[in-house]
Amino acid sequence: MDSDYGIPRELSDLQKLRSHYQPKLPPCLEGTTVRVEYGDATTTADPVDAQTISRSFPHTYGQPLAHFLRATAKVPDAQIITEHPVIRVGVVFCGRQSPGGHNVIWGLHSALKIHNPDNVLLGFLGGSEGLFAQKTLEITDNILSTYKNQGGYDLLGRTKDQIRTTEQVNAALAACKSLKLDGLVIIGGVTSNTDAAQLAETFAEAKCPTKVVGVPVTLNGDLKNQFVETNVGFDTICKVNSQLISNVCTDALSAEKYYYFIRLMGRKASHVALECTLQSHPNMVILGEEVAASKLTLFDLTKQVCDAVQARAEQDKYHGVILLPEGLIESIPEVYALLKEIHGLLRQGVAVDNISSQLSPWAFALFEFMPPFIRKQLLLYPESDDSAQLSQIETEKLLAYLVEAEINKRLKEGIYKGKKFNTICHFFGYQARGSLPSKFDCDYAYVLGHICYHILAASLNGYMATVTNLKSPVNKWRCGAAPIAAMMTVKRWSPNPGATSIGKPAIHPANVDLRGKAYELLRQNAARFLMDDIYRNPGPLQFDGPGTDAKAITLCVEDRDYMGRIKDLQVYLDKIRTIVKPGCPQEVLKAALSIMASVTEVLSTMSSSGNNL
Amino acid sequence: MDSDYGIPRELSDLQKLRSHYQPKLPPCLEGTTVRVEYGDATTTADPVDAQTISRSFPHTYGQPLAHFLRATAKVPDAQIITEHPVIRVGVVFCGRQSPGGHNVIWGLHSALKIHNPDNVLLGFLGGSEGLFAQKTLEITDNILSTYKNQGGYDLLGRTKDQIRTTEQVNAALAACKSLKLDGLVIIGGVTSNTDAAQLAETFAEAKCPTKVVGVPVTLNGDLKNQFVETNVGFDTICKVNSQLISNVCTDALSAEKYYYFIRLMGRKASHVALECTLQSHPNMVILGEEVAASKLTLFDLTKQVCDAVQARAEQDKYHGVILLPEGLIESIPEVYALLKEIHGLLRQGVAVDNISSQLSPWAFALFEFMPPFIRKQLLLYPESDDSAQLSQIETEKLLAYLVEAEINKRLKEGIYKGKKFNTICHFFGYQARGSLPSKFDCDYAYVLGHICYHILAASLNGYMATVTNLKSPVNKWRCGAAPIAAMMTVKRWSPNPGATSIGKPAIHPANVDLRGKAYELLRQNAARFLMDDIYRNPGPLQFDGPGTDAKAITLCVEDRDYMGRIKDLQVYLDKIRTIVKPGCPQEVLKAALSIMASVTEVLSTMSSSGNNL
Repeated sequence: MDSDYGIPRELSDLQKLRSHYQPKLPPCLEGTTVRVEYGDATTTADPVDAQTISRSFPHTYGQPLAHFLRATAKVPDAQIITEHPVIRVGVVFCGRQSPGGHNVIWGLHSALKIHNPDNVLLGFLGGSEGLFAQKTLEITDNILSTYKNQGGYDLLGRTKDQIRTTEQVNAALAACKSLKLDGLVIIGGVTSNTDAAQLAETFAEAKCPTKVVGVPVTLNGDLKNQFVETNVGFDTICKVNSQLISNVCTDALSAEKYYYFIRLMGRKASHVALECTLQSHPNMVILGEEVAASKLTLFDLTKQVCDAVQARAEQDKYHGVILLPEGLIESIPEVYALLKEIHGLLRQGVAVDNISSQLSPWAFALFEFMPPFIRKQLLLYPESDDSAQLSQIETEKLLAYLVEAEINKRLKEGIYKGKKFNTICHFFGYQARGSLPSKFDCDYAYVLGHICYHILAASLNGYMATVTNLKSPVNKWRCGAAPIAAMMTVKRWSPNPGATSIGKPAIHPANVDLRGKAYELLRQNAARFLMDDIYRNPGPLQFDGPGTDAKAITLCVEDRDYMGRIKDLQVYLDKIRTIVKPGCPQEVLKAALSIMASVTEVLSTMSSSGNNL
Repeated sequence: MDSDYGIPRELSDLQKLRSHYQPKLPPCLEGTTVRVEYGDATTTADPVDAQTISRSFPHTYGQPLAHFLRATAKVPDAQIITEHPVIRVGVVFCGRQSPGGHNVIWGLHSALKIHNPDNVLLGFLGGSEGLFAQKTLEITDNILSTYKNQGGYDLLGRTKDQIRTTEQVNAALAACKSLKLDGLVIIGGVTSNTDAAQLAETFAEAKCPTKVVGVPVTLNGDLKNQFVETNVGFDTICKVNSQLISNVCTDALSAEKYYYFIRLMGRKASHVALECTLQSHPNMVILGEEVAASKLTLFDLTKQVCDAVQARAEQDKYHGVILLPEGLIESIPEVYALLKEIHGLLRQGVAVDNISSQLSPWAFALFEFMPPFIRKQLLLYPESDDSAQLSQIETEKLLAYLVEAEINKRLKEGIYKGKKFNTICHFFGYQARGSLPSKFDCDYAYVLGHICYHILAASLNGYMATVTNLKSPVNKWRCGAAPIAAMMTVKRWSPNPGATSIGKPAIHPANVDLRGKAYELLRQNAARFLMDDIYRNPGPLQFDGPGTDAKAITLCVEDRDYMGRIKDLQVYLDKIRTIVKPGCPQEVLKAALSIMASVTEVLSTMSSSGNNL
């Protein structure tokens, strides 16, 4: 299996053109001299979690934020790294492939070679399995040449996505030691970055000199927090899916006789579905977060869709496009409870054929109510993160089936008076996941790769590479690093009796924020999307011309750049110190004291209320 | 329903850019003066059919080919059309939408307005239903503005695709008379163009002055014959599908654990599957024509795929991509026979639930052998062209199911020694059908629209607009018109007892030519495609840069331009006449006679053997 990795490939004309694209670097990373400025010690978003996390991560919790600045930046405390001894770095793809992953490796390799041509980058073959087995490929510019700006993870491949058991952690430690690595870069999503933090802590405890760095690469877009604005791959996935959704919308409008139910890959959270809706304007989207928040049952959802179909039929419209996130199925309360029972029995070793007879009476009733194809899918063994096998459960077919039954019932009762209701179901995921990355993802991943080098040059351990202010052009991007432990939360309960996640600090997938601006934008337009068919076709992914520089709408409407604001706050604090220094007039000091007292009081009150803000 | 058609739409940036693209015209159609040159009277490809067809089409069979030439072309017999009285033309979308359809209307409108600003173009709303009901929308440049170079048929919509029953034909006749149409342009595939020919004949018989013109627009690419090289929409569909297939290939190569079974829309023939294979190099394709020719059973196909999976496993490869045309299911002999029985019973009015009990013993056995989901799909009522509902039968899932069962059996028996075999199934069709058209389809459709005008200006009836030499740049394209009746064949038998097509002349879908160059190219590469994963990613559809001018490979490898060659032959014949005119030396005449005698003999022998060439 090794021999196939990293071999030069024949590229199509378009791939060749893309492979010649050179992503730009923000000014702070240009040249060979970069300043590192450290912020204050970090804490977690929920102060209640801080103690648990600090106990679990004694070596790596509470480390300061790091900002990378131009060598000429006028920041007195920033430290310029001038020494660049030879280092050896390993890099590994963990978890599901995401477009742009290859560019992280390219960016890292490029930064390594700029700072010292003798630096070495080793890629682990076949994901974490390659790490444990110490199977490596030395990355060279020659090897990279046909993988630059290309999709997939096929340069190195990937298999399992876990570095968690004692054996796995020990194998990783042994690999880093025996390969004499100064740094290990882990490319992945929430699970892999949690593993990276754990590995960093274990290495620190074991006095292993290898520093561990995480990179936020996941098409789900659910590794989102105060430090991370979006993930590599999300932009591409949403653009490719939106192209396909809008093609289906055009098809619906041309044939005028089908309702398309489209399920979108993206795991538990509905970020992909929300973004695609804002890009392509289908008639309807059902977000898992909405369903969970309103505790909508399968019956409620069916009714909601049927009412929409009926309202459209009254306007003589017999076509439509409805999006569902793959995580929807777990957000429906009664289905979730059923899944919970099934997973519990499966974990107890009950054979699949005997499950239904051991369900509680109400769960059994729901199970029997389901069409046979769904029953089979609900019985699948849960994934390692305790969730159901979301990509395998055809929620779109279930909903289409229930809606059709209900419409036929209404037709018989004379409530629905329209034409025949026809459905076509789709699952969009794999066909987007292997796409050529968008320009944004090429740039973002390449810059993150460079940042990984600077994190290692600064000898930081347990950090994630971050870029903020992403909605602005590349020359305005702010580059930094945040301790992964600061992104963690602790789940105190789970309705899932077998859940291994209770009480353990981890990066949990961020849900769509129902109080956020992106969701607000959706709600403002939902009625028009539903009735007026204002389908929007962003077209196929481009590298030139209109649309090239379009970024994810959910990224741009939110007012983020947390890292930038943390810096702005520092500037204010420094300014106050300059204005109110010993010798300043009595009145100025008095005014400053009074204002600072009330600011402190307000912030203390707000902070102690924690997550309930 | 009317109010929504032709309304201006909000376009995305990319759509706007595309809408400003102005397709070029070949030199012969530039300016306002075009010469028409008529060739010899046409016949059909199979001389045996000629008599039947001439009896069915007494007014429109045997008409000459028409070539449109530059006004300055030095062709003595060509006629310049100088009079351009005001004409009124109707246009209708028939059958399934195909990318580029809108540009036929734009090209036609543009030619009409160039030649006389008072010309009128009426679009029928909602397909042939709108024609029967005389629901029209006058096409203006303003209405066209947001539909130029855009996908779908939503400018006018479409519903049913038939103009065949006496009521339908009479309604069409009444519409053309009452709207005082000089021409009716029918945009569609094999069925719609057969209907167009029938309508032309009926109109001629009824002395209705409306001339009927057909335009070859179908994503299936199966309206292929000596006069028609390819169809509008085929290029786009294949490019969009190839992009998705290659994304899936990249995904397969990254995860290394799935076999993807992808079924492609395209009706009975396998043109789309062949073209996509040549563009994206998946591991395997199973063409319906191959299966039919070799009479491969479901068991043979399963074995073939299992052997491939096993061969790859021996090279430690556990991933792959396999393409199937949607028509495959009908090409498998025993399944076809089963479908034939089911359709016969359905036509007799047997209820779906009672079908299986009335099947012949062997058909019953096969039916019972099938997994339940396929049984349900096989029981669907056949389409109007007597074929099964191909888009609804999940052949990819059936094959994946059978292969998995066989691999598990081999695993038990110790024959297969590899890892677990995992499949993911896809149907690609709707998501490509609504795409923005490729540059080629934009150009081709626009030129065809112009040709429709010249056909009408020349008062031709029952013709199809044609462009040949399409593999060359637009300025080398040859424009013409061919009588639709000359493209027909007569089916003399059908295994389907209820088939309405027997004995009736019609344009039948062209199969993939297993002796053609495109198929040869596939065979030459099949082994490398299967084992070496030389996946090729043509990338998303582009309008600029590399890949923009790429054309369908199946179009380019074939040595076509029949129309051009017919013209070349004429030039030779004319030359002989010039050389060997009265007064020429005795020897020259003698030599000419001798050679012509043998040429005549050879060609007569070849022609009389008809389709058995």
